[in-house]
Amino acid sequence: MTKYYELEQLGHHKDDILLMIHADDAGLSCSQNAATIEALKMGIVNSYSIMVPCPWFWDMANFAKNHPQYDCGIHLTLSCEWKSYKFGPVLPASEVPSLVDQYGYFHGSRETIKKLADPSEVKKELKAQIELALKAGIQPTHLDSHMYTLGLTNELLKVYKELGEEYKLPIFLNKELLQSVGNFTPIPQLGTMVHQVHIGNFNAMKNEGLSAKYKEIIQDLVPGLHILLIHPAFNNMEMKQVCLDHPNFGAEWRQMDFDFFTDPNTATLLKERNIKPISWREIQLSSL
Amino acid sequence: MTKYYELEQLGHHKDDILLMIHADDAGLSCSQNAATIEALKMGIVNSYSIMVPCPWFWDMANFAKNHPQYDCGIHLTLSCEWKSYKFGPVLPASEVPSLVDQYGYFHGSRETIKKLADPSEVKKELKAQIELALKAGIQPTHLDSHMYTLGLTNELLKVYKELGEEYKLPIFLNKELLQSVGNFTPIPQLGTMVHQVHIGNFNAMKNEGLSAKYKEIIQDLVPGLHILLIHPAFNNMEMKQVCLDHPNFGAEWRQMDFDFFTDPNTATLLKERNIKPISWREIQLSSL
Repeated sequence: MTKYYELEQLGHHKDDILLMIHADDAGLSCSQNAATIEALKMGIVNSYSIMVPCPWFWDMANFAKNHPQYDCGIHLTLSCEWKSYKFGPVLPASEVPSLVDQYGYFHGSRETIKKLADPSEVKKELKAQIELALKAGIQPTHLDSHMYTLGLTNELLKVYKELGEEYKLPIFLNKELLQSVGNFTPIPQLGTMVHQVHIGNFNAMKNEGLSAKYKEIIQDLVPGLHILLIHPAFNNMEMKQVCLDHPNFGAEWRQMDFDFFTDPNTATLLKERNIKPISWREIQLSSL
Repeated sequence: MTKYYELEQLGHHKDDILLMIHADDAGLSCSQNAATIEALKMGIVNSYSIMVPCPWFWDMANFAKNHPQYDCGIHLTLSCEWKSYKFGPVLPASEVPSLVDQYGYFHGSRETIKKLADPSEVKKELKAQIELALKAGIQPTHLDSHMYTLGLTNELLKVYKELGEEYKLPIFLNKELLQSVGNFTPIPQLGTMVHQVHIGNFNAMKNEGLSAKYKEIIQDLVPGLHILLIHPAFNNMEMKQVCLDHPNFGAEWRQMDFDFFTDPNTATLLKERNIKPISWREIQLSSL
């Protein structure tokens, strides 16, 4: 039986609609940091997670340290999916050879990671990412996984679970996400799950734009604990070059995320539907 | 006796004014790369050097590989002078402990480097930077030194000289630069020197702007081999944050560099004074 968070245990009514609007990929670039920070300050986006191996980690860590009121997770990172913008592990490449290409950068695709990544090296690297975040002064509220690569295999899921236990942090789990990334049948019993996860869609982005998709998602929410994953960034010179030839989750997508989730009409829509915000910190506290 | 490049040996007349307009810091950021590339294509800037340990190295390396017609040096890097934007050595921090702070990033100031950097670790790290550049497909035309940190001590200068010899590449040397960074008396005899080096000035930047300063420099050039060091970048969100609280060589300075050295009037001024461009490749070939 899949175990879900119980709304009553989180201090809510069982018929409530609880929604976390979570900004992924903080630390990736200057644009991503600036848009994430602005979106958090506007008040609809209420949680984010930070990529420790990325070039703009330090900038975002400074923000996190000075603004502990916002949920901040560690966006555990094993991939660099960009063509012209490269980063690699926090550990020396020689210590985690199965995680890197010939230049010492992370692999770009889930397929390569699934094929090559040694779970013991994954664990070592991800512990180093968490340790560096702690050393930089971040007080993490949760762990999640960039491109959900930790959902690729049972061995990687085991690492994810162990990291959550060792650092006493909730890990972000959802049945449909596990199925879509790892094709699990049955779904492994790892821990408590978020009822539903929502993400924009590339076709919607190209056609009607993401705001229509997000409105639809919000309109259709049913009672339960939901997470909406977004990637706010500004569609500027830097972000266009980071996302070169990668329109899926590209710079245009990210600008649409920023625009919709800083729009006062979105706040109104959430209020009209009586959707309540929830943070990982609340979840963490209710699980203690 | 200080040995200078001889203009006749470079295939020019002894009364010629030879000027290289050299863009430092390529690879530092997206903004720096984009402005450097645009400036090179405009034709006045005719040489640049690339910082291998920086986040945007790969992007610039792609350009270098596909545009071998432009001089491209390795801007040997031992420092990270930025507050919110951090990078460290190409080698694992544990292999070059004297070059890094407690987080594994490069030290920020010449003073700290002078005090702490072990020359054998400097050599190991800088060889790794050159090797990574070669592996990425760059065919370097010269070596120079970011913030001229290799001019801090005799031991570091020895490393610089040895790297030039081992890779058969000219190293950028100038008497006044050595004096200003390393306070040498007398100047060590390391190799052939560039007659004069010219750089913008922070006071000029704040007051009359850098273009007045650069016009003055160009007007005053005398026969000899000159290098004018510039740092073109766009004064955009990314560059402002890279240069946070660091107006000297900051984002505004860099935009002024871009503006002046892509202005057609600057080309006209150079032509009026019959100033001839020279590249490191020409210098390299004449030294073989």
